[in-house]
Amino acid sequence: MKAVVIRCNASGAALQDAEIEMPACGPNDLCVAVQAVSVNPIDLKMARAKPAADEKPRVLGWDAAGTVHAVGSEVKDFSIGDRVYYAGSVLRPGCFSEFHLVDERLVAPAPRSLSWVEAAALPLSSLAAWEALFDRMRIPQRSAGARAKALLVLGGAGGVGSMAIQLAVQLTDLHVVATASRIESRDHCLALGAHAVIDHTAPLAPQLKALGRPQVAYVLCLTEPSAVWSDLATVLAPFGHLCALVEAAAPLDMNLLRAKSLSFSWEGMFTRAMFKTADMVGQQDILRQLAQAVDAGVLKTTLKHHLGPVDARHLMHAHALLAMRRTIGKIVLG
Amino acid sequence: MKAVVIRCNASGAALQDAEIEMPACGPNDLCVAVQAVSVNPIDLKMARAKPAADEKPRVLGWDAAGTVHAVGSEVKDFSIGDRVYYAGSVLRPGCFSEFHLVDERLVAPAPRSLSWVEAAALPLSSLAAWEALFDRMRIPQRSAGARAKALLVLGGAGGVGSMAIQLAVQLTDLHVVATASRIESRDHCLALGAHAVIDHTAPLAPQLKALGRPQVAYVLCLTEPSAVWSDLATVLAPFGHLCALVEAAAPLDMNLLRAKSLSFSWEGMFTRAMFKTADMVGQQDILRQLAQAVDAGVLKTTLKHHLGPVDARHLMHAHALLAMRRTIGKIVLG
Repeated sequence: MKAVVIRCNASGAALQDAEIEMPACGPNDLCVAVQAVSVNPIDLKMARAKPAADEKPRVLGWDAAGTVHAVGSEVKDFSIGDRVYYAGSVLRPGCFSEFHLVDERLVAPAPRSLSWVEAAALPLSSLAAWEALFDRMRIPQRSAGARAKALLVLGGAGGVGSMAIQLAVQLTDLHVVATASRIESRDHCLALGAHAVIDHTAPLAPQLKALGRPQVAYVLCLTEPSAVWSDLATVLAPFGHLCALVEAAAPLDMNLLRAKSLSFSWEGMFTRAMFKTADMVGQQDILRQLAQAVDAGVLKTTLKHHLGPVDARHLMHAHALLAMRRTIGKIVLG
Repeated sequence: MKAVVIRCNASGAALQDAEIEMPACGPNDLCVAVQAVSVNPIDLKMARAKPAADEKPRVLGWDAAGTVHAVGSEVKDFSIGDRVYYAGSVLRPGCFSEFHLVDERLVAPAPRSLSWVEAAALPLSSLAAWEALFDRMRIPQRSAGARAKALLVLGGAGGVGSMAIQLAVQLTDLHVVATASRIESRDHCLALGAHAVIDHTAPLAPQLKALGRPQVAYVLCLTEPSAVWSDLATVLAPFGHLCALVEAAAPLDMNLLRAKSLSFSWEGMFTRAMFKTADMVGQQDILRQLAQAVDAGVLKTTLKHHLGPVDARHLMHAHALLAMRRTIGKIVLG
């Protein structure tokens, strides 16, 4: 089958079109005919991972939409021909290939109202946003209307932020303040429903004060956390909760969070798959709920850039855009 | 009225018996005739606080049981003569005095089945244990019997630990592993119901493995956290939650918690009172539930050392014992 592989040599790593062996389903696997994929920072991280001496070419990519082509002997929730979407597991080969294996517990039917590329934009970043808000910070899903408490989304215009804003605005009673540093990213956040947008390149506390929201109950930090740490400690309300996704580049002074009895969580979308946790099937549940909300018109796809078919040339373009860290929404191929 | 005050001079701070002015109730205050008090690490911390140049003698002590002697104009939950217990607020003078003012939202009726000294042992440390388990880590209060998940209580024999063990054993379905480093502290933890006790002066992971509990869902860290940090990161299960009370003496490498999507919370018993949070009255609720559980025979007082009446001599003795960090349960005067 066709695939885009990453080959490491003395001068670095390169993406190449290649022909690789068709994989065989394990008992819980779906073999999916991949129709569209999206790119994520994890691709760049995995591309940099030091290869083993005898390494075979690797396949990146952990965000896919496609059709079930074959099923493992113990698969019970899916049949051949089902339209599905998923992020999968970083412990297995990625989805930048014609066919791809994934454990059915990580998969759900794709939203019926979306095209392949619109669907492929969603899984990884939506799972991260959903788990961060509802599993890690345990923000109640309700709509009391009052919006008394606030959520600050740092880096609101990226893939995770674009879904987190929508989830918080549509499914919770939080007042949602996003951060963005450019006019187009600011407009993007407002179009997704953010109640206010502030600039994360300037101190946060005075901007929040000017909004009449000097303290926030929740912070979803989608940027590197050490750069904004003391600012976040200042703006969090007593008993507030901060959730971060990106590894800290410098030590985080946890004592700054102590007087207000604050909580900090890491959200890692791959934790369930990496540790094969008992609640692994929770990702199927989230993707199902997400698809329903999309089909009901409550949530929108975060697709922003459709670059072309899945091949080495388009993936290199996608990864170059991603590495600049200025993209809005999601980059999709298919 | 009589009080024990702390006076700072060139050679340090000293506790002295003194006669000070009787305080006048604010609208939400109870004036309590203090019958018994207990000592806590916060006393030592507040004693070390740098005094203002013109400082008046200060009163320490934030754990009391006594009788309501007078009430403020807006008090609605208490009447003169009520038997009460509470921790109070570090922003106000402490309770090592004949009479003491406290906001009624932080107070509850004392357990009927306990003596004054037995009751005074409870408030501060029980509030900390309760808030850590049920508010910060949000451990469900239920008893399914299975005890599939485990809680590790680091420093199980101290004041907070002695109540945390009981709360977890009696009110949750967790398997409770406490740590202790001496025979008497180990026996104390087992007598409170801990299902197992390990030694926190040795690596934790192999000891938990030997117990058949290699991973724990929750850690309540009642000792200085940086000393055991990498051990805790190792033994926490994916999506596990760690709650700490004591300021970190060295940076905590938060990245160690990332792969497993772990959560970290600070528990500060005085956060509600210090920030006058909207849920300040939650401490009254907790102390009420605690008193009911004590009167129902579900929880026991953590009183271990009754040193004598509240005076400078006995308080100096109590603080000296506390500073050694080897006491089991609570030290009470009254």
